[in-house]
Amino acid sequence: MTDTKGGPKPDPATLADWQARARSWFETLRDDIHALFETLEDEVGGDDAAGRFVREPWSRTDADGSDGGGGVMGTLAGRLFEKAGVHTSTVHGRFTGDFGAQIPGAAEDPTFWASGISLIAHPVNPHVPTVHINTRYVVTTRQWFGGGGDLTPMLARRRSQDHPDAVRFHAAYRDAYARHPVGDYARDKAWCDEYFYLPHRKEPRGIGGVFTDYLASGDWEADFALIKDIGTTFMEVYAQIVRGTMHEPWTEADREEQQTQRGRYVEFNLLYDRGTLFGLRTGGNVASILSSMPPTVRWP
Amino acid sequence: MTDTKGGPKPDPATLADWQARARSWFETLRDDIHALFETLEDEVGGDDAAGRFVREPWSRTDADGSDGGGGVMGTLAGRLFEKAGVHTSTVHGRFTGDFGAQIPGAAEDPTFWASGISLIAHPVNPHVPTVHINTRYVVTTRQWFGGGGDLTPMLARRRSQDHPDAVRFHAAYRDAYARHPVGDYARDKAWCDEYFYLPHRKEPRGIGGVFTDYLASGDWEADFALIKDIGTTFMEVYAQIVRGTMHEPWTEADREEQQTQRGRYVEFNLLYDRGTLFGLRTGGNVASILSSMPPTVRWP
Repeated sequence: MTDTKGGPKPDPATLADWQARARSWFETLRDDIHALFETLEDEVGGDDAAGRFVREPWSRTDADGSDGGGGVMGTLAGRLFEKAGVHTSTVHGRFTGDFGAQIPGAAEDPTFWASGISLIAHPVNPHVPTVHINTRYVVTTRQWFGGGGDLTPMLARRRSQDHPDAVRFHAAYRDAYARHPVGDYARDKAWCDEYFYLPHRKEPRGIGGVFTDYLASGDWEADFALIKDIGTTFMEVYAQIVRGTMHEPWTEADREEQQTQRGRYVEFNLLYDRGTLFGLRTGGNVASILSSMPPTVRWP
Repeated sequence: MTDTKGGPKPDPATLADWQARARSWFETLRDDIHALFETLEDEVGGDDAAGRFVREPWSRTDADGSDGGGGVMGTLAGRLFEKAGVHTSTVHGRFTGDFGAQIPGAAEDPTFWASGISLIAHPVNPHVPTVHINTRYVVTTRQWFGGGGDLTPMLARRRSQDHPDAVRFHAAYRDAYARHPVGDYARDKAWCDEYFYLPHRKEPRGIGGVFTDYLASGDWEADFALIKDIGTTFMEVYAQIVRGTMHEPWTEADREEQQTQRGRYVEFNLLYDRGTLFGLRTGGNVASILSSMPPTVRWP
């Protein structure tokens, strides 16, 4: 069986260049987001100290005992963001067991390389939406980009497609995709809705966003430009949403509603999220994988 | 393939009698535990009101639209028990899809009947251990009892096999099994340890207890007597542990440690617990299944 997902690999020198540039971008975006979130921590004001990111490097050993790369966990516990994780990793090795069969291009050769950034932010103020993004570049015998972003307003009265925050978030990604003909906005928005859904609750996790995978149009530069724009668009639109909500007063009932809704986030991540389950079952870095868990949660 | 798990069914009149007696016992035990927990709520004292159970009946419709039985959720939010769920259910119908293949005696005929009690208690005071029990009687073309109980002290300094609470809990079940030659204490204690384990954390959920399944020795009365003793032993030993710990003062750090350890409980239930995953994937009563979730949780 020939895999048709992803794209073919270029010559080794070109591939090495693409890998280096992708990794460098993810790490630059990480630096920019860390700086943005720390600025927002300053701007929100208050008696508590403004939060700052703490970076913790980690490394992994591949199944055969060789170096398997690693990453840097970046976590912040602040006065605006109760808990935020903005991590990068670049890992490599060989898939073992059945996992290779699920990954395009890995059935014939289980060697893999992957680099990416992942972000989740759980604000203190129930009016400020929770957000998640990740983007990555993966190389097996094929190569592709993947990732996306989605917004989860925590209060029911804000978690609707008509709310200005939702309208703004979707408009930003619609406009971003319009700048990149390699992107299919309608498909990637629908995929996001389909993915972030809790069947047992019969409810979506949030208001959606975009999600793509196996992006390899044949024009690597164009694909890379879209992936970069998914990141920079997140920074712009989320900063606008945070600045528009971070000073809204909330009640104890709002806070309890937020913490209860966070329980749905936990249910999604532990019951359905492919990345979480894949990571836990393949001996990934538990601290990094479960850094997505909300800091305080209620199941009343 | 002939299933060898569980035991053969007796004549219809005898089976109906066993089903009625098992169900009646589970409901009597539920009444007794509700009364015990409410007594403990009175005994702990304090300014807040003593908690009382609220009972909510629910019913299910089987896949073909016919009556599928139901149950009664009993939940208490109190001053000793931050959240306790002590539920009974008696359900019947036909397994659909692949599920029958996993259940002894259901491959040839997917008709099932099951009755049981399930309990989970999350105390306010971090010194008072969390506890879980469930016992059930299941009938397909075979019939058997199953269930057990396990204790989860929430503070690391209490969550050891040497701690007097752990010693007391294990001694109570060892003594109970000694009264019932149909029980294999060593096997059922080991099974409990194997089951309540978090591979991704490489740690046990708590200090263990006993867990049995497919119990059908050929002497139904003897099996039933063991199952009843698993319930009454729980009441005795847990009441002793609660009374011995419920007045111990705790610090804010103890409370945070408890809420963080509760996160491990959530991880276990959503990632590994067979009953939880089976229930959610088969359209069970979400409120009842997820009533095991702790009321307040932290992932710092």
